[in-house]
Amino acid sequence: MSQKIRWGVLGGGGDSLIGVLHRVAASMFDAYALTGAVFNPDYEQNKAFAQEIGIPLDRIYPDFDAMVEAELALPVDQRIQVFSVLTPNFLHYPMAKKLMESGFHVICEKPMTMTHAEALDLQKIQADKGVLFALTHTYTGYPMIRQMKAMIAQGAIGSLQKVDAQYYQGWINPIIHDPDQRSTTWRLNPDKSGISCCMGDIGVHAYQMLEYVTGQKIESVLADLNHLYDDNQMDIDGTVLLRLGRHVKGVLRASQIATAEENNFSLAIYGREGALKWEQENPNYLTLLKDGQPAQTLKPGHGYNTAFSLDGTKLPPGHPEGIFDAMGNIYKGMAKAVRGQEYTEGEFPSMEDGVRGMKFIETAVASHAEGNVWKKL
Amino acid sequence: MSQKIRWGVLGGGGDSLIGVLHRVAASMFDAYALTGAVFNPDYEQNKAFAQEIGIPLDRIYPDFDAMVEAELALPVDQRIQVFSVLTPNFLHYPMAKKLMESGFHVICEKPMTMTHAEALDLQKIQADKGVLFALTHTYTGYPMIRQMKAMIAQGAIGSLQKVDAQYYQGWINPIIHDPDQRSTTWRLNPDKSGISCCMGDIGVHAYQMLEYVTGQKIESVLADLNHLYDDNQMDIDGTVLLRLGRHVKGVLRASQIATAEENNFSLAIYGREGALKWEQENPNYLTLLKDGQPAQTLKPGHGYNTAFSLDGTKLPPGHPEGIFDAMGNIYKGMAKAVRGQEYTEGEFPSMEDGVRGMKFIETAVASHAEGNVWKKL
Amino acid sequence: MSQKIRWGVLGGGGDSLIGVLHRVAASMFDAYALTGAVFNPDYEQNKAFAQEIGIPLDRIYPDFDAMVEAELALPVDQRIQVFSVLTPNFLHYPMAKKLMESGFHVICEKPMTMTHAEALDLQKIQADKGVLFALTHTYTGYPMIRQMKAMIAQGAIGSLQKVDAQYYQGWINPIIHDPDQRSTTWRLNPDKSGISCCMGDIGVHAYQMLEYVTGQKIESVLADLNHLYDDNQMDIDGTVLLRLGRHVKGVLRASQIATAEENNFSLAIYGREGALKWEQENPNYLTLLKDGQPAQTLKPGHGYNTAFSLDGTKLPPGHPEGIFDAMGNIYKGMAKAVRGQEYTEGEFPSMEDGVRGMKFIETAVASHAEGNVWKKL
Amino acid sequence: MSQKIRWGVLGGGGDSLIGVLHRVAASMFDAYALTGAVFNPDYEQNKAFAQEIGIPLDRIYPDFDAMVEAELALPVDQRIQVFSVLTPNFLHYPMAKKLMESGFHVICEKPMTMTHAEALDLQKIQADKGVLFALTHTYTGYPMIRQMKAMIAQGAIGSLQKVDAQYYQGWINPIIHDPDQRSTTWRLNPDKSGISCCMGDIGVHAYQMLEYVTGQKIESVLADLNHLYDDNQMDIDGTVLLRLGRHVKGVLRASQIATAEENNFSLAIYGREGALKWEQENPNYLTLLKDGQPAQTLKPGHGYNTAFSLDGTKLPPGHPEGIFDAMGNIYKGMAKAVRGQEYTEGEFPSMEDGVRGMKFIETAVASHAEGNVWKKL
Repeated sequence: MSQKIRWGVLGGGGDSLIGVLHRVAASMFDAYALTGAVFNPDYEQNKAFAQEIGIPLDRIYPDFDAMVEAELALPVDQRIQVFSVLTPNFLHYPMAKKLMESGFHVICEKPMTMTHAEALDLQKIQADKGVLFALTHTYTGYPMIRQMKAMIAQGAIGSLQKVDAQYYQGWINPIIHDPDQRSTTWRLNPDKSGISCCMGDIGVHAYQMLEYVTGQKIESVLADLNHLYDDNQMDIDGTVLLRLGRHVKGVLRASQIATAEENNFSLAIYGREGALKWEQENPNYLTLLKDGQPAQTLKPGHGYNTAFSLDGTKLPPGHPEGIFDAMGNIYKGMAKAVRGQEYTEGEFPSMEDGVRGMKFIETAVASHAEGNVWKKL
Repeated sequence: MSQKIRWGVLGGGGDSLIGVLHRVAASMFDAYALTGAVFNPDYEQNKAFAQEIGIPLDRIYPDFDAMVEAELALPVDQRIQVFSVLTPNFLHYPMAKKLMESGFHVICEKPMTMTHAEALDLQKIQADKGVLFALTHTYTGYPMIRQMKAMIAQGAIGSLQKVDAQYYQGWINPIIHDPDQRSTTWRLNPDKSGISCCMGDIGVHAYQMLEYVTGQKIESVLADLNHLYDDNQMDIDGTVLLRLGRHVKGVLRASQIATAEENNFSLAIYGREGALKWEQENPNYLTLLKDGQPAQTLKPGHGYNTAFSLDGTKLPPGHPEGIFDAMGNIYKGMAKAVRGQEYTEGEFPSMEDGVRGMKFIETAVASHAEGNVWKKL
Repeated sequence: MSQKIRWGVLGGGGDSLIGVLHRVAASMFDAYALTGAVFNPDYEQNKAFAQEIGIPLDRIYPDFDAMVEAELALPVDQRIQVFSVLTPNFLHYPMAKKLMESGFHVICEKPMTMTHAEALDLQKIQADKGVLFALTHTYTGYPMIRQMKAMIAQGAIGSLQKVDAQYYQGWINPIIHDPDQRSTTWRLNPDKSGISCCMGDIGVHAYQMLEYVTGQKIESVLADLNHLYDDNQMDIDGTVLLRLGRHVKGVLRASQIATAEENNFSLAIYGREGALKWEQENPNYLTLLKDGQPAQTLKPGHGYNTAFSLDGTKLPPGHPEGIFDAMGNIYKGMAKAVRGQEYTEGEFPSMEDGVRGMKFIETAVASHAEGNVWKKL
Repeated sequence: MSQKIRWGVLGGGGDSLIGVLHRVAASMFDAYALTGAVFNPDYEQNKAFAQEIGIPLDRIYPDFDAMVEAELALPVDQRIQVFSVLTPNFLHYPMAKKLMESGFHVICEKPMTMTHAEALDLQKIQADKGVLFALTHTYTGYPMIRQMKAMIAQGAIGSLQKVDAQYYQGWINPIIHDPDQRSTTWRLNPDKSGISCCMGDIGVHAYQMLEYVTGQKIESVLADLNHLYDDNQMDIDGTVLLRLGRHVKGVLRASQIATAEENNFSLAIYGREGALKWEQENPNYLTLLKDGQPAQTLKPGHGYNTAFSLDGTKLPPGHPEGIFDAMGNIYKGMAKAVRGQEYTEGEFPSMEDGVRGMKFIETAVASHAEGNVWKKL
């Protein structure tokens, strides 16, 4: 019998969208049992929310520290095995740190930490403790992203010569032009959000995905960031020039003032033998281009996809799955790892993705601050 | 406290895709607790599956009759409240009948029954017993279908003058040209599948959705069905002319030999003041056309949508939700009904959809058999 | 030296859009010299228009009869070789008749005639006189339509099993609901427009293209036409069931009250080995579907296209050509024929297309009038 | 009477695609008469080509100088009024110079010159002589580009905050990896092609269009160019960071090694009140985005377009026009100017577009060469 994995949740209570996303994802393959939680820092609200979603109250704890202590006091076969950290960004680091030090596996929302130094600390702890760590860069869970990664690894487009990632949103546009809103929105406050808004929130997604699908490291960056009002200088837009290797260049564009864009994240990877293109808002289409041939459109669930991609599709072709399903695939991969089953590297983003992501953010900000100069990653 | 609804499942064990779809859907809004089941007619397999997905065995029953008996013996506040019937088609009718007669609410996969007569019988039983009944025409749960329905009801496109539904699949193409496969596929066997293959399986979806989004009844049909080999005369393709009212006509096209189509279901509704168009494979786009104006593309989650549509979206615009989420919305609506909360008509397809659907199938087949003549519905 | 073909034009003066279309098309391959014309029945306006577009007045004639007489009086090597008939519909037949009887080649706008009987008469005359005749079903000139025709002929999608053509426009919607407009619009007046509006104007395009791309004849039809007001019973909408052979069926849908549609004409042809799909509003994309393979998108100008298709593309891939270019290709084909050069059947639609088209219109109207019954073509 | 404009052509003979494009464009509005030419530097080939396309030989000249001399000897009312310069790039400057100095109007293919200094010289000559000059940046002639320009000028998207242009082609990919081809292709040879390949050929299109549609000047650039082999260091790929004003930034991306891309040129302009997006391969669609509203898709020919846009559409909505039609619109505008009729600024790109384009190319190359630094334009 494959007993469900005992799963603890930190944050994600109330109206939290991220809470819904993780709970649904965890349920998708019948692998996790929500066993204990601190959904909310207020104990009463925490309990109320647990009741609202039908969770017994016996392992709903007053706070994080109490939870860790109590769980550690339980026999191993009753103890929570893996925690999801869905709290505000500044809590990711201390919580993940204590959890891993205590021997728990961790699923962590992005950004992994507030600084690169914190990220390196977590990396060291994970290595020391030998626990599992998944960073929920959700888009990696889309079947056609997995297919893209697998095809590039197999040489379908040959050696890389150009990469292009776009992540355009417009949600800050109505905020930034209003002095009140721009001074109160947490995402625009470096104390709450870290040193970067646009690069820290979405640029890092684009960065992670470029490295994820290509399997190559970005070596150096030159960033030009933008803000609209001098009374709030957090970046809300920016372009980053990329170098991946000798004669392999690229560009990463991100904006939160690309007016009225929703979540327009796209990738285009050009190699000597072909190209692969993908768009997050239509995630079930992967375009393959080859010199002198008709464009091909790959879709999930077909036998021509790799096993790695097919593992992420539940229904036959033509039944569109979406972002909940992408997150579900990440949870599925982590469940395999927790259970000691075989899994493919890339089923869930790792500590290294988090470390490199934090490094990217800091480096891009520094490149801009120093006058748009090249900086090594 | 909103205790979870005690939910029972019939069928859907093993590799059943429909089982996954319903379990995930039921989990999406934290409203249901899977309390008991007969996942499989073989008791050992039933228990094994329950273990595999982490369900306690105490209410995993040897068979359907035992389950009903045992549940009825429990106090009302422990008894399963609603059953989902995911068994093979010919079992929908007897199971739904017994469940409703025993006072349980029912969520039933389509087709509701094998015949129109059976459907009428269920309708009578539901009326007598006052239980709830939901038929899982999944596509009704898409936010943009809800938006389409609401806009038409509000007069956004004026009085109807033309409707067009297409449901093209290709999956029977590789089967039908192989004598062995076409003689053994259950879907092509009227004993297992009913009197119609194409109209019974997918034509009825298109029919239900036309009535669902327009809020109008199709009055009469003229069908021309097709088969490719005389040794298997089940319809695998067909076109149905429609009349909805004086000078309101339309057409419904369905095929399972539209080679290499996946699940290409689309609707186009033309009214005096505009048109609305939608495609199942890209369900998050709703196109509004107006004479002399730019086409508009509506997407889920925006404030311009109706409350009915917004209730079906969990994440902000640009985060694509899919068919699991559509089914989740149907379960959400049924949960409101079970809990006696207010809900909008149309949150889940009803008994009447099932009765009319069975009537449509039988009438289309008769229209064709009698020489492509008009038949009233 | 390839002297330009001496070309005469009847109609197409003033603001005529069709006049512009044909003049530009004739110029595209440097093959025609506009040598003489009766652009307008009013001689003064005719001359004024000739001056406006920079044509010398010496062969601008007072009327059609004078033109034919004068041209016949010229030596053969100065005489106009081919006439384009762009006059109102009811003049197509008498003009084409006299021109062919006088030994001129004819390029004729559609509809070829007002009745099938007239069409048969023209067919006999052409056979007697041995002149060339092209009917300008413009859409046949698109490179991807040529590619579609060639691929089907070569067996790319195997034997046919289903055809579907849609031709949806909305331009009559604002007219039909206004009693004044609907009583005065020439297209809705059978005296000017023939017995059918929707089928005669656009249904026949869809019909011609189905036969053109498949290379197969439609054997019988069952039509259901529609009008919205009893004071004007011209069809403005209709669906036609099609039979092309044993177990080969299809459907043709046309409407001029598909509110706010522009010129939404599309074809989908399904064969045992694959499918081909095309849309007129995006004419440079041809989709090829195959069981279990990624969809392919073919575009003009690539080496993978047939010579027949490539002959219709002037610029490299990615430089969109449009409907003027499609008409230009028809003129190019006719130029080859006039010059006695080799050309491919299908470079321009023929007399037979016209005869069959008129038969289709009359048969569809009769099928509807007799109660939606099957009629042989 | 509007006599046709006497038009001379330099270059564009034989298989020249650009020759076809200009001849068809000139014919589209019946405004030009091809009166004289030097299609080819070889006099025999020149005459042969004239005969092939049906042009009388009396004003087919042995060479450019002879042509200018002979035309100047003619009375003004017989003399060619405007010349199109379609010769190899290095001849644009000397020919345009002599033509303007001799008092002829000029239509010139891009690039206008080989250097910015030459461009400034032409600008001075034009000012001195008061002749007309059009630079055929063809894409400006698309109706939806005109609409985009007009809407931005009218404030439809408010003050700019971000611009993004992409021009991705793949045609150099099969060339660059072959040592023989890359050493012999003229486009990769700076002596024939100028100091830049990618920026000089297509980057400059993107640059011109950004300034054209926004009506704003790009103030400074930082370029990172790329080549793949050290034995040929012409740029074949590059990204250029842009500054248009305080807090108005953007990016221009161009590549000729974006494998298997055809002519994938797109613009996205984001303003405080909305955004406009357009793609060259689907030029008849213009997308308007507004915060919190459905996306709108504008198409040519509708009454909601500006007069400036409508002037560039010949047929009703739904009849796709393409790149020949775009060039036709430029010729139409130039014809108005030659005839002294009123026309809208922007109907044809001007000398200033050419001067700024050459400046852009030189500045981008310098920015890269100096280590990716900001340079003023």
